[in-house]
Amino acid sequence: MNLLVISESEQNLRLDRIRKQMLKAGIDALLISDNANTYYLTGRVFMGYIYVPVSGPVIHFVKRPNDIEGDFTVRIRKPEQIAETIGLNKPATIGLELDVTDYTTAERLIKVFEGSRIENATPLLRHARAVKTAAELDMIKASGAHQDHVYSLIPSLFKEGMTDVELQVEIERASRLDGCLGQFRISGDSMELYMGNLLVGENADTPTPYDFAMGGEGQSPSLPVGANGTIIKPGVTVMADINGNYTGYMTDMTRTYTCGDIPELAVKAHKCSIDICHKLAEIGRPGVEAKMLYETAERMAAEAGLADYFMGHHQKAGFVGHGVGIEINELPVIAPRSRDILEVNNVLAIEPKFVIPKVGAVGIENTYVVTPDGLQPLTHSPEELTELI
Amino acid sequence: MNLLVISESEQNLRLDRIRKQMLKAGIDALLISDNANTYYLTGRVFMGYIYVPVSGPVIHFVKRPNDIEGDFTVRIRKPEQIAETIGLNKPATIGLELDVTDYTTAERLIKVFEGSRIENATPLLRHARAVKTAAELDMIKASGAHQDHVYSLIPSLFKEGMTDVELQVEIERASRLDGCLGQFRISGDSMELYMGNLLVGENADTPTPYDFAMGGEGQSPSLPVGANGTIIKPGVTVMADINGNYTGYMTDMTRTYTCGDIPELAVKAHKCSIDICHKLAEIGRPGVEAKMLYETAERMAAEAGLADYFMGHHQKAGFVGHGVGIEINELPVIAPRSRDILEVNNVLAIEPKFVIPKVGAVGIENTYVVTPDGLQPLTHSPEELTELI
Repeated sequence: MNLLVISESEQNLRLDRIRKQMLKAGIDALLISDNANTYYLTGRVFMGYIYVPVSGPVIHFVKRPNDIEGDFTVRIRKPEQIAETIGLNKPATIGLELDVTDYTTAERLIKVFEGSRIENATPLLRHARAVKTAAELDMIKASGAHQDHVYSLIPSLFKEGMTDVELQVEIERASRLDGCLGQFRISGDSMELYMGNLLVGENADTPTPYDFAMGGEGQSPSLPVGANGTIIKPGVTVMADINGNYTGYMTDMTRTYTCGDIPELAVKAHKCSIDICHKLAEIGRPGVEAKMLYETAERMAAEAGLADYFMGHHQKAGFVGHGVGIEINELPVIAPRSRDILEVNNVLAIEPKFVIPKVGAVGIENTYVVTPDGLQPLTHSPEELTELI
Repeated sequence: MNLLVISESEQNLRLDRIRKQMLKAGIDALLISDNANTYYLTGRVFMGYIYVPVSGPVIHFVKRPNDIEGDFTVRIRKPEQIAETIGLNKPATIGLELDVTDYTTAERLIKVFEGSRIENATPLLRHARAVKTAAELDMIKASGAHQDHVYSLIPSLFKEGMTDVELQVEIERASRLDGCLGQFRISGDSMELYMGNLLVGENADTPTPYDFAMGGEGQSPSLPVGANGTIIKPGVTVMADINGNYTGYMTDMTRTYTCGDIPELAVKAHKCSIDICHKLAEIGRPGVEAKMLYETAERMAAEAGLADYFMGHHQKAGFVGHGVGIEINELPVIAPRSRDILEVNNVLAIEPKFVIPKVGAVGIENTYVVTPDGLQPLTHSPEELTELI
């Protein structure tokens, strides 16, 4: 089996982005082993390491699986064998993925590169991955098309008397049968979620430990987020934010459904969410500060008299959007203290949401690509509130 | 909302186990933030830290959610505030979860405890968690009962012409409707799986990068493990190893189904797997070396002339069993070089499996608790091959 799933020219495009960052940071070589970064550089996940010198051939050190072959592919059992291959060409400065590698493993890798200066390469890798290539955009668009299709089925999946969990399970099934991989890749060990977040009624106002936009009690204190068994009854909203990973590259989309009549406040807040999305799509261009998008969203919510409900009620999220691609929490971050500047071909999810006490969550989320003319949506489902009953 | 979900006396039982290990290791205090360890000590996941001195009250530092209260519960925004609360009582030696905390975060925590000697507390926490309390055993038994029920439905979920993915999706749905949380908690960032592993025919012989007992190509090179779209046709086996997390504590069970007649070799290997499980259940007692269980399993496979197929064919797994509880990869490890010794109330999954070329995977897996009289099964589904068609 050939190691490279992406073409060599595609790998070079991605390497070019990384190497520009390496030059800027004064890093002579990288050692990569995180699954997300491995997938980015080769188009597959394998267990091992990718050695990326600032110039010269990339070396793939493979522990598992045992049937991978390719140019500059070396089979190893342990990281100490990397030093044997590199020999005397030890880099003056080596970049390691220190934000995602556990301390014990990092210490072992630091020993392998004894004599080299150690730098944290996670920020530069995140920055490189934040601007998508055309091939990556195609993967994201494909996920978006699948996700749109599944969301079109949601009203037909609902049956009267269902709980939030029961409806979520039917959406999970429809997603999986449409090719959803289920996996929800997140950077960081402490973020957890199963397949998605379906919030009904006042469960939407339950704070969660996780750093997601919305909360929910969940089904167990071992995974306290999302649906909690609430019966879907007239007068509440149903917010569906379900996994859009169909290709290894995700889209992230949220739509809100209603059950019978809901209060005017909730209808107004939903409309405000759509307005915010449209406004940010119009002003989000290369060179714009990410925090400016956040400020615009927050101001629009305040001007509509909805500040109390914006991004949560009992507990508020600290952002209104985030980059998305291989992982759900990529750059740029659309938050008040973000220093990110939008670039062409950033892909980001914008999710201005509101929690209305006793009623539930309202609002939408779309995934967009940054173009010179503004944000172009990659998720296209109807944005208005849709009636379930 | 009260921080402690488990009772105070239950927390004390778990603390006692941890503190015995701390005394042995000469550690004066622990700082815990890993979700699995947080759940172990409180019965819930929250974002923050638990400070465990070798004597005196445990302090819970909570970042999120914002509605948690309790004795010795302090709200913080950042880890540096821990030092303010502890004040002058800085421990001489602090234990951190260095095998699971990323390097950048660990360095930050090490600064918080400047002046203290730093020790890696992951091994002692894993050791403490390996022996289950009565309350934990109840949670595991409850998961086992759910898993048994779902497995009893599998033959009725199968329809002729289905692919492996389609059958797996129906098992996922049945599991979720029966209360399965879906989440598959694994220690370590590089292990990934969605809900379970359903292997049909020769896909079982595809090596995976992950360190699971079995492989499979998967649906995408971004998650290369498990079902790959193989149509279930006569002459193959269907091995189902699907998520048993119904309570925050998992059971792990595998059963094998047949589709039409399968070769005698596969039937024989399945029987050998059952024999190995029964043999290990008989000899697995407190004080027994884990590696002895592995050696027994390997010898029985070899004596049956099945060494080539044992624990994989093209690529072999290096273990025949593992501890299970909050995470799927707990102690003890049943492997050739394991130094673990079985203790009363260890819970472990034994999975002697075989991959028969062109036919598929056969064998079973059960979850057991270690008792003075041997291993007692916590999963009870019929062990024989079950016909799907």
